[in-house]
Amino acid sequence: MNPRAMVKLSHFLNSGNKLFQCRLRGENSGSCFNLISSAGISTARQSYGADGRSSSRIFADYSIFKGKAALSAAPVLPTFSKMESGFTKVDRRGVIMLTFRPAIGERKYDSEKKQLFALSVTEVGSFISLGPGESCEFYHDPSMASRDAGQVRKSLSIKPHTDGYFISLSVTNNISKTNERFTVPVTTAEFAVMRSAFSFALPHIMGWAYSTNPPTNSAGRDFSKVQPQVSAASEWDR
Amino acid sequence: MNPRAMVKLSHFLNSGNKLFQCRLRGENSGSCFNLISSAGISTARQSYGADGRSSSRIFADYSIFKGKAALSAAPVLPTFSKMESGFTKVDRRGVIMLTFRPAIGERKYDSEKKQLFALSVTEVGSFISLGPGESCEFYHDPSMASRDAGQVRKSLSIKPHTDGYFISLSVTNNISKTNERFTVPVTTAEFAVMRSAFSFALPHIMGWAYSTNPPTNSAGRDFSKVQPQVSAASEWDR
Amino acid sequence: MNPRAMVKLSHFLNSGNKLFQCRLRGENSGSCFNLISSAGISTARQSYGADGRSSSRIFADYSIFKGKAALSAAPVLPTFSKMESGFTKVDRRGVIMLTFRPAIGERKYDSEKKQLFALSVTEVGSFISLGPGESCEFYHDPSMASRDAGQVRKSLSIKPHTDGYFISLSVTNNISKTNERFTVPVTTAEFAVMRSAFSFALPHIMGWAYSTNPPTNSAGRDFSKVQPQVSAASEWDR
Amino acid sequence: MNPRAMVKLSHFLNSGNKLFQCRLRGENSGSCFNLISSAGISTARQSYGADGRSSSRIFADYSIFKGKAALSAAPVLPTFSKMESGFTKVDRRGVIMLTFRPAIGERKYDSEKKQLFALSVTEVGSFISLGPGESCEFYHDPSMASRDAGQVRKSLSIKPHTDGYFISLSVTNNISKTNERFTVPVTTAEFAVMRSAFSFALPHIMGWAYSTNPPTNSAGRDFSKVQPQVSAASEWDR
Repeated sequence: MNPRAMVKLSHFLNSGNKLFQCRLRGENSGSCFNLISSAGISTARQSYGADGRSSSRIFADYSIFKGKAALSAAPVLPTFSKMESGFTKVDRRGVIMLTFRPAIGERKYDSEKKQLFALSVTEVGSFISLGPGESCEFYHDPSMASRDAGQVRKSLSIKPHTDGYFISLSVTNNISKTNERFTVPVTTAEFAVMRSAFSFALPHIMGWAYSTNPPTNSAGRDFSKVQPQVSAASEWDR
Repeated sequence: MNPRAMVKLSHFLNSGNKLFQCRLRGENSGSCFNLISSAGISTARQSYGADGRSSSRIFADYSIFKGKAALSAAPVLPTFSKMESGFTKVDRRGVIMLTFRPAIGERKYDSEKKQLFALSVTEVGSFISLGPGESCEFYHDPSMASRDAGQVRKSLSIKPHTDGYFISLSVTNNISKTNERFTVPVTTAEFAVMRSAFSFALPHIMGWAYSTNPPTNSAGRDFSKVQPQVSAASEWDR
Repeated sequence: MNPRAMVKLSHFLNSGNKLFQCRLRGENSGSCFNLISSAGISTARQSYGADGRSSSRIFADYSIFKGKAALSAAPVLPTFSKMESGFTKVDRRGVIMLTFRPAIGERKYDSEKKQLFALSVTEVGSFISLGPGESCEFYHDPSMASRDAGQVRKSLSIKPHTDGYFISLSVTNNISKTNERFTVPVTTAEFAVMRSAFSFALPHIMGWAYSTNPPTNSAGRDFSKVQPQVSAASEWDR
Repeated sequence: MNPRAMVKLSHFLNSGNKLFQCRLRGENSGSCFNLISSAGISTARQSYGADGRSSSRIFADYSIFKGKAALSAAPVLPTFSKMESGFTKVDRRGVIMLTFRPAIGERKYDSEKKQLFALSVTEVGSFISLGPGESCEFYHDPSMASRDAGQVRKSLSIKPHTDGYFISLSVTNNISKTNERFTVPVTTAEFAVMRSAFSFALPHIMGWAYSTNPPTNSAGRDFSKVQPQVSAASEWDR
C-alpha cells in the first residue's frame, strides 16, 4: 500500500486511539480497536456493485439462532489492485462480517432490521486470543471522517457467561434518535467454532493466504523461477 | 441459505434445546448439541446417488482398531447450489462422519453391523475445545421431523480416562427393540490426531475453505477483479 | 483400505500393544505407538523406484545442525489408488521422516551413516501434543512381520531439558551386532517449528488435505455437483 | 540441500552459537538464534533483480502505526531450484521480513530511513511460541562471512508490557558510527494477529506447504501415481 494510504490509515488509528482510549483500557487484556476496517472498506459498495464477476463468489456463513436474535458470521475477502510496477497488492483488507437479526415472533428473524458489524483483522486477533473469562469490546463509527462523524455509534461486546459468551451489538443513531441492542448467547462449542473459523479466515482477510501462493503451486511445474516478493537482500542495504 | 431454511433450522435447534436441556447441562462445559447435521443431510442419499461425479471424491479416513470395536472418522464435504442471483452458496453443511464397527472374533470387524454418527459443525467445535478431564455428550434422532421421530435415539459420549478418552456410541431403536453400544478407548495421541484433523476439517465442512478461495488463486493471474462476497459497505447502510 | 488390510493393521497394533505395553506406560501421558507407518510403507521402495513422475516432487526438509549429529525432518505424502468403484482412496498413509546424521570432524555430517525413523500419523499426534516437561518414546521394528522380526530395534525418545528437548534415536541390530545412538538437543524455538510444521503436515500425511478438496476449488466454476464422499444419509439406515 | 550446503549452514550456526551464547542465554526460554536467513538470502538481490516473473507476486503486509514508528511484517517465500536428479528442492528458505519506519512529524513515516530485519524460520518458531510474560532477542550480522563481518549489528527484542509487547530494533553501524533504535508498542490483539499470521506463514517459508501438494491436487484426476518424495522404505535399509 502506498505511503499516502499509510498516512491516512495511521490518521484513523491515532484519532481512534485518542477518542476511545479511556473507554477501552482496563483489566480487559483482550481489548483492542482498529478502525482500518471502517475506513478501509468505506467505498466497498461502489467497487462491489461495479463488478459482475463477484457473482462467482461462494457464500458460507456460520449462523447461530437463539430466542431473541440470530447472529451470522462470514468472511469478506480483501480486494487487490495492480501497481504501476506490475506487482499486485492488497488494496483493501478483508473483514469478518457479523450480522444480527432480531427475532420476530417464534423462530422468525427479521432481515429488514438486520445490523452489521465488520470485524477488522486486529479485532479478529482480539477475538481469537480472548482468554477464559476475559471480555472484549469494539467501537465503530460508520460515518467516521465524513461530516456525520459521531452521529452513529456501534459497539460490539463479548462477555463470558457460565457456558460460553454473550455477544452483544448496540447501535446508537443520534440522527434517527434510535438505540438498538442485540444480545446472542453463544455456547462454548459455538464460540470454539467461531474461534477456529476466524483463525482460519485471518490470513485470508489479511491477504497473506494469497501472497504465500507461489505463481505455480502444482509440484508438476517448474519452481525455479519462484522469487521472494520483497528483496530480502535489502536487510543488508544499510 | 434462504430465510425459509433458517426458520426450519432454528426450529430444530429450539426443539432440540427443549428436549435435551436437562440431559445435557451440568459441569460439562464442553457439552453442546446441534441437530443441523441430522436435519441438513437427511436427503443426502438421493442427491449422492444421483451424482456420478461424486466418484471422483477421495476417501481418507482415520481408523482406530481396538479389542472390542473399531472407530473410523472421515470428513463429509458440504454441498453447494447456485442461487437465482448467480451466486453459489452452501446448500448443506458437511459433517465429520464417525463409523463404529464391532469386533467379531479376534482382529475382525463387522462392517455389516456398523453404526454411524455424523458430527455437525458445532459438535466438532465442542469436540476440539474439550478441555483436559472434560466430557461431552451428543444426541441425535435420525428420524427427527418424520413420523418415526423419537423411535431411534443415538448418543455419542466422550469421557476422559488416564491416557485419553473413551468414545462411546449407543443406539436405541424402539421399533426393532434393540440397544447397541460401542466403546473405543482412544489414547492421548490418537485423540490429538482427531483434534488436529477435525480442526483442519472444520472450515472445510463449514464451507469457509471454499468461500475464501478467490476466483483465481494463482498469483500469476489478475487479482484486480477479486471482490468481497458481501457488500461490506452495508455496515453503513443504517 | 480394504477389510483385509484392516485386519493386518489391527494385528500389528494389537501385537504391538502386547509387546511393548510395559515399556511404554508410566507417567508419560504423551506416549503412544502405532506401527501403521512401519507396516504401511514396507513396499515403498518398489513403488517409489518404479515411478518416474515422483521426480516432480518438491523436497523441503527442516534441518537442525548440532555438535554431535544433525536431525532433518520432512513430510512423506500418502499414496492413493483407485478402487473398482472408481473412487480414489488413501493406499498408504504418509509419515514424517526423521533423518539423523552423525558429525564427523567439525561441521561435517556423514550421510553414509544416516539412520531414519518414520513417524506415523499417531506418533505425530503424540509429538505435537507433548505437554511442557513431558517425554515420549516410540519403538519400531523395521523387519516386523518378516522372518527377521525382532532383529533390528529402533527407538526414538523425546525428553525435556532446560531450553527444549533432547531427541534421541537408538538402533540395535542383533544381526550386525551393532548399537548406534544419536542425540540432538533441540531448542524451544526449534521444537516450536517442528510442532507447527508437523501440525500443518498431519492432515496431509493422513490424506484429509486431499479429500477436503472438492473436484473444483476455483470459485469461478460450478459447485452444484460437489457431493459428500460418504453417503451421509446412511446415519439413518438402521 | 546438498551436503556441501549443509556444512556451510552448520558453520554459520556454530560460529553464531559461540559468538552470542552468553548474550542469549538466561531466563529467556523463548530465546533462539538462527543465522540461516542472514546467510541463506545473502544473494537474494541478484536472483530477485534478475527475474521479471517475480512481478507476479502479491504484496500483503501487516502494518502497525504508532506514535514514534511503524512496523510492517510480510512473508518472503522460499526459492526453489531443480537438482540434476530432476527433483525440485528448496534453494533458499523464506523469512518474515519486518520493516521499521520512523515517524517524522505527526502521522508521517519515513521510508527513506526504514530498517529491515528478516526473521528466519527458527526465529519465527521462537516468536510464535513466546509464552505470557516471556521475552525474546535475536542478533543478526548482515555482513556475516564477508570482510565487514561484525561492522553492522542488528538486534530485535520482544519484551512484554501490560497489554502486549514492545518490539524494538537496534542497528549499530561501526562504519558509519551510527546507532539507530526503533520501538513499537504492540497490543495483545495486534500480537495475536502476528502470531496467527506467522504460524500460517511458517510452513510456507519452510517450503513444506509446497512439498505437501501432490502433483495433482484436484480430486478429479488420477492419484495413483502420487509417491512419497523420500524413499520411505529406506527406514529398513540398514
